[in-house]
Amino acid sequence: MKLGFIGLGIMGAPMAGHLLAGGHEVFAFSRSGVPAAVVAQGAQACASPAEVAQKADIIFTMVPDTPHVADVLFGANGVAQGISTGKTVVDMSSISPIATKEFAAKINALSCDYLDAPVSGGEVGAKAASLTIMVGGSEATFNKVQPLFALMGKNITLIGDNGSGQTCKVANQIVVALNIEAVGEALLFAAKAGADPAKVRQALMGGLATSRILELHGERMIKRTFNPGFRIELHQKDLNLALEGAKAMGLSLPNTASTQQLMSSCVAHGGAGWDHSGLVRALEIAANFQISPTPANPSAV
Amino acid sequence: MKLGFIGLGIMGAPMAGHLLAGGHEVFAFSRSGVPAAVVAQGAQACASPAEVAQKADIIFTMVPDTPHVADVLFGANGVAQGISTGKTVVDMSSISPIATKEFAAKINALSCDYLDAPVSGGEVGAKAASLTIMVGGSEATFNKVQPLFALMGKNITLIGDNGSGQTCKVANQIVVALNIEAVGEALLFAAKAGADPAKVRQALMGGLATSRILELHGERMIKRTFNPGFRIELHQKDLNLALEGAKAMGLSLPNTASTQQLMSSCVAHGGAGWDHSGLVRALEIAANFQISPTPANPSAV
Repeated sequence: MKLGFIGLGIMGAPMAGHLLAGGHEVFAFSRSGVPAAVVAQGAQACASPAEVAQKADIIFTMVPDTPHVADVLFGANGVAQGISTGKTVVDMSSISPIATKEFAAKINALSCDYLDAPVSGGEVGAKAASLTIMVGGSEATFNKVQPLFALMGKNITLIGDNGSGQTCKVANQIVVALNIEAVGEALLFAAKAGADPAKVRQALMGGLATSRILELHGERMIKRTFNPGFRIELHQKDLNLALEGAKAMGLSLPNTASTQQLMSSCVAHGGAGWDHSGLVRALEIAANFQISPTPANPSAV
Repeated sequence: MKLGFIGLGIMGAPMAGHLLAGGHEVFAFSRSGVPAAVVAQGAQACASPAEVAQKADIIFTMVPDTPHVADVLFGANGVAQGISTGKTVVDMSSISPIATKEFAAKINALSCDYLDAPVSGGEVGAKAASLTIMVGGSEATFNKVQPLFALMGKNITLIGDNGSGQTCKVANQIVVALNIEAVGEALLFAAKAGADPAKVRQALMGGLATSRILELHGERMIKRTFNPGFRIELHQKDLNLALEGAKAMGLSLPNTASTQQLMSSCVAHGGAGWDHSGLVRALEIAANFQISPTPANPSAV
């Protein structure tokens, strides 16, 4: 198929690579230029999102935030200026569910289809083609794009109408952030009370408290490996989407709000670029106590 | 061996049953009388904790809260009045780590050993002999009691000195409560935004957000099955231990504190006896919105 890919950063580049490896033509655009490695795999670099939309039938976008999606779709030389009847836009960025519904309506008004399809799994999942993909849109469009999703991910779910994919991603990020915070509070309590946090983590893994976060991020907290991973500043963006959405919908999300504040405290201490497991640092700084000593290796905070 | 068991409620009765089934003599006392079923299994009913301590070499206690442990150990006709050199007290209740250190010191002063060995896994785990057991005390005493623990549980960990078992249990209850709250916020956000919470739960189970709580309690929230399970009023007790301990140690546990407040809101709405997954009701009441409709079956809230 003739595919387009806009946004070839640390996520987009390997994802486009999987589409190329799947035997598809890929017309590519990236604000900072199409990476040589992706061109070497066969991607054809375009001068603008509009050119991508002219040449491809299904156009993927993978850019940092809501304004970037607005810009590549509807800005100068954007997708909307090159697209024509029957084509499909698939936004795999993690952005506002509310804005997504507007974007989908505008694309639909051009007689084109739209899917929101944000992912989780990070750079590792993008490279391994093991991303979780959460999709919003019509079932017919989902079925059409599904074989392409399958080249990039493993756990692929149609959640509902446009916006539902982004909503699901926000829900995912709420759970991940709050589970990290929970493990931080628990290990801090245990360590300060004199228990070995590694043994506590091990004991908790056997029961109701077990989670992927306890396993992965709990270990990072104990071993002090706060190099990303997933950066706190990116998770802040996601919690902002949650809190903005909650305000718009009249919801109170108390622990999402307080966890966002803890992330701000991390940023105040230079931690915007820490892995999100470094959230525990905010709790530690408040308590003037560390779960475990900082090792003498340069990757630790 | 000659064992004692004090406290034969919904947890203690099946636990004592496993010790009897393991071929041990069990001398039993319960405030409300030793259940006939446990006597039928061979337990010998005693008139007081002191009598249990006279007749048994290893005395287990499984009672509701810190004051009850203080009473059965050191009150009138308590264990301390019947115990003698070389015997062992194993408190499997979930109580204060700080009080536990005092209790252990007082038992040690009688030339006896003490283990704190709280459990997780609830009534189901007690009946199935699959409890997680978190132990504080000396390695020698742990090794002596370990074969008896193995009759009652599966994931048995010596965490550290006396109090560490209780500390680990508190850490467990922090993670469980905060993970429930996280799932509640996420599913509420998703449902209010118009996404199907069951599909969101399914999608999240594939990735970093996955947890035992998402699996079990997420489903209870969606299906509105808030019959216990583990009652909110019991989880409140555990979070109180966390917050009292945090205050004593100079820790700030912001999400434990706010989650405790949400549990209080549940109690205000008649929910002291709801399963702890019913915590989501406090978020729903605040938002004037329910994740999913209440079904027409009587077990739902």
